[in-house]
Amino acid sequence: MTLRKESLAMGVDIGGTKIAAGLVDASGTIVQQVRTPMAAHGEASAGLAAVVAAIKKLGEKLGAGSSLSSTVRGIGLCSPGPVDPHTGVVINPPNLPCWRNYPLVAEVSRTFGLPVTLDNDGNAAALAEARWGAGRGYRNVFYATIGTGIGTGIVFDGRIYHGRTGAAAEGGHVSIDYRGPQCGCGKPGCIEVLACGPAIARRARAKLAAGQRSSLLDLAQGNAEAITPEVVGQAYTVGDAVARETLLETVDLLALWLGNMVDLLEPDVMVMGGGVAAMLQPLFEEIRERLPRYCINSRCREIPLVMARYGADAGIAGGAALCEATATSAA
Amino acid sequence: MTLRKESLAMGVDIGGTKIAAGLVDASGTIVQQVRTPMAAHGEASAGLAAVVAAIKKLGEKLGAGSSLSSTVRGIGLCSPGPVDPHTGVVINPPNLPCWRNYPLVAEVSRTFGLPVTLDNDGNAAALAEARWGAGRGYRNVFYATIGTGIGTGIVFDGRIYHGRTGAAAEGGHVSIDYRGPQCGCGKPGCIEVLACGPAIARRARAKLAAGQRSSLLDLAQGNAEAITPEVVGQAYTVGDAVARETLLETVDLLALWLGNMVDLLEPDVMVMGGGVAAMLQPLFEEIRERLPRYCINSRCREIPLVMARYGADAGIAGGAALCEATATSAA
Repeated sequence: MTLRKESLAMGVDIGGTKIAAGLVDASGTIVQQVRTPMAAHGEASAGLAAVVAAIKKLGEKLGAGSSLSSTVRGIGLCSPGPVDPHTGVVINPPNLPCWRNYPLVAEVSRTFGLPVTLDNDGNAAALAEARWGAGRGYRNVFYATIGTGIGTGIVFDGRIYHGRTGAAAEGGHVSIDYRGPQCGCGKPGCIEVLACGPAIARRARAKLAAGQRSSLLDLAQGNAEAITPEVVGQAYTVGDAVARETLLETVDLLALWLGNMVDLLEPDVMVMGGGVAAMLQPLFEEIRERLPRYCINSRCREIPLVMARYGADAGIAGGAALCEATATSAA
Repeated sequence: MTLRKESLAMGVDIGGTKIAAGLVDASGTIVQQVRTPMAAHGEASAGLAAVVAAIKKLGEKLGAGSSLSSTVRGIGLCSPGPVDPHTGVVINPPNLPCWRNYPLVAEVSRTFGLPVTLDNDGNAAALAEARWGAGRGYRNVFYATIGTGIGTGIVFDGRIYHGRTGAAAEGGHVSIDYRGPQCGCGKPGCIEVLACGPAIARRARAKLAAGQRSSLLDLAQGNAEAITPEVVGQAYTVGDAVARETLLETVDLLALWLGNMVDLLEPDVMVMGGGVAAMLQPLFEEIRERLPRYCINSRCREIPLVMARYGADAGIAGGAALCEATATSAA
């Protein structure tokens, strides 16, 4: 691998159990990556050591004669929120109990002597899509990742929209049902609690419990608890009625929620990432067809609804995009 | 009245039945204003003539020796949406059937030889509050006017957020109840259909019809149809239980809705205008107390929730603020 100085940006995706770190070139291609364990439940210093180890392991892949500081323009970190992107402090993410108001950027920067940036994973992934992915060429990008939870990010004019303290763009916690079930965040009827992966599985199970006939139980070897969103997606593709009903209900909820986003933000593109979004991709056209019912915006159907470029590597690309942003704004 | 050239901006608020036009100084004070009838249901040219008449009548107030073009920097028009702020075209507002894709800015500009700008009334009022009113000094302003309907406007860094075609910031049509009553816009559970003035009166009437005892009927001279939001507000101030219950339900809906705005936009300030907001002002603290329940944002209570500076004159100030914006961006 031949690498020029500053040709690459490093993205580091810090999760509750593992870290993914990668090198990303100017076109957004991930040219090298590693996965290492995270130590999220111990001391703050052990959490930092895990991040440092991931970065060093990636550095080793550069090969003889290349060092991080001679090859990499900067390091972009992303993690679950809340984090303070302005000060580089990790505030108190539930999945990273090791860090409470921890100055992660300062620590990593001190260790490697490179510019370091931090943002939450939704914002970072949104920026990667806006710069290199499915949102490229659009001015205002609304990004959502739908999986175990629902995270979002908003990019206006090439910049992450942060709000007052960096806590904006929590679109997964926009409620569309004030009388609805309580979300993990405590709020009733957030789209996250209604349409995330576990909600899809739960809804399918409830239909089975109510006596609806389905191939879902067979696919899950007779164990209702083993019905995952992926199993529902699989059953849908073979024409199962319960799976179809479950996914169409989810699609309808997402259409109203995206309708809210259109009426409030009128983005130029809506980019969907995450495992559940990938499973729902065959139904994106169905979502767009339902939008006019759920929008006052008469031109809502003109807004593209597209799948993200980055899948499981969204955090690596996102981290690298942050680092890109630093370079640009410093220029 | 002594006036220097270009010391004033003109704001023209075009409604379905009347036009309010005024002159606004650099501090946002309305120094002169007129109200004239609008001709919204005839020919496009009659609608234009009504606007021209309002502007001329205001010009006459300038007194001998002063002409519009020597005194006024520009004219800012606002009307119900949808309008295209970029092209100055009125698209198809339900309240202004005289105009369908009508180039209002071009026509008014041709008549008076002054720079003319157009935006919808929510956006314009938001800009006036951000520049001269309760949002002054804050970076990102969320504005809502609560009355017969609910209109909103978003100002980021001193500029109206328009979205893709100028149709963004329709916060009144963000739904918080996907199983709820259908709004005039066709969407279920918009905050407008749940918390506007008519919804408050309707909810109070339903409680009376269900047999709840109240002084509301006395205040409305025994005629339930005469119960307006103002009557409910009046009854609340004298301790009526049904009025109190009705307003607290409204407050709770608004708190969840504002919680959504905080989680998505995290503005620096939330400014409320309109007659219903004025009536609810004694309950603003109650709304803020409920916010943490309806926000994932742990610092939501730090965001000021304040009454707008401009009341019935919001459209005049809004129009003038638009004109201000043109002058600034042209500078």
